[in-house]
Amino acid sequence: MLEGKNISNIALPEPTLRRLPWYLAYINLLNAKNIEYVSSTQISKDINVDASQIAKDLSFLNIKGKTRIGYEVKSLAKELEDFLGFKRVHNTFMMGVGSLGAALIQDSGLSQYGLRIVAGFDVNPLRIGTSICGVPIFHVSELKMRQQELNAEIGVLAVPVENAQEATDVMINGGIKAIWNFTPFRIKAPENIVIQNTSIYAHLAVMYNRMNTLK
Amino acid sequence: MLEGKNISNIALPEPTLRRLPWYLAYINLLNAKNIEYVSSTQISKDINVDASQIAKDLSFLNIKGKTRIGYEVKSLAKELEDFLGFKRVHNTFMMGVGSLGAALIQDSGLSQYGLRIVAGFDVNPLRIGTSICGVPIFHVSELKMRQQELNAEIGVLAVPVENAQEATDVMINGGIKAIWNFTPFRIKAPENIVIQNTSIYAHLAVMYNRMNTLK
Repeated sequence: MLEGKNISNIALPEPTLRRLPWYLAYINLLNAKNIEYVSSTQISKDINVDASQIAKDLSFLNIKGKTRIGYEVKSLAKELEDFLGFKRVHNTFMMGVGSLGAALIQDSGLSQYGLRIVAGFDVNPLRIGTSICGVPIFHVSELKMRQQELNAEIGVLAVPVENAQEATDVMINGGIKAIWNFTPFRIKAPENIVIQNTSIYAHLAVMYNRMNTLK
Repeated sequence: MLEGKNISNIALPEPTLRRLPWYLAYINLLNAKNIEYVSSTQISKDINVDASQIAKDLSFLNIKGKTRIGYEVKSLAKELEDFLGFKRVHNTFMMGVGSLGAALIQDSGLSQYGLRIVAGFDVNPLRIGTSICGVPIFHVSELKMRQQELNAEIGVLAVPVENAQEATDVMINGGIKAIWNFTPFRIKAPENIVIQNTSIYAHLAVMYNRMNTLK
């Protein structure tokens, strides 16, 4: 697939990448209010990020702010969305449809951000052959076969910790290119596989500690 | 409440706090296999974290490894759990029970990590008066009143971006001490309120970018 001078092929620093969705959420709010221009100073005030940081982050995009006017809201929203890839559909497997996996399938927000879950996999006989919100659940042993028709790029890892590495290996063997790891287990994978760790329970640990230290 | 020389009152660096749950998940696996001792070198090999980093992280805990033997697995698991606060019950409100909020209520994993959701709040009349997995859903205007009986410390923010700040203010006004923010909106709060941002969609942005740059 020829993507030309697609700017989203540039590897950005992770902190920048994490801030861009904040800007997008904020810019979409302005857009809904029919606001046409916004300066980085204004964004800074409203979302508590340093204005020079914002200007630097946005400099990675194909968009320039105008002196004294700022950024055009509509263009900035479009550039951010294009860049972040939220508009492109990424076929995805859910590995493990226990409590967390099933919950993630039910979150329609994910599909709004480009993550389309096309199948779930599990080993529990009670789950296999069922479907969750229209997503069919298959036995893990069928993953490679199902991949031929479903062509998933991403695998979401939501299995128990003790099965995390094995499930990862099955996905990689089945042609999955990126693994979104919701377990607190540090999985291993070849270098050409993208791993994104999102252990929401680890965030709880940070929050609890901050609560204790504030008391 | 007198907590004595509770070590979990020390403010730890966030990267350390995020790694501790990895160690716990790994140590629990060893425990399940009846392994009695483990060295930081062995942990390092198995979970891909530098051994000196592990030793440094664990030095914050009330536990010492023994020369040539390493850490006692059972004690280390207990220390980590105590420190992380996963065993203490934190009463929690779910603010917004749309797709994501409802999904989070259904994830029983959260309660295993000490987050007990005792009520949900919304403005959608179709949701109010119902319950999700036994969690009653009330109108947002009832939050302060319900708080008197339910005594929630934490509020999970899972409302649409345009309502994020207002919902935050309602929770703080209702006596909530910590806000777990799942929206991509940068909420503002007084300094004595803990804010933990967990925008899972921002993690998607990082993953998509890494996928593009690997191609």
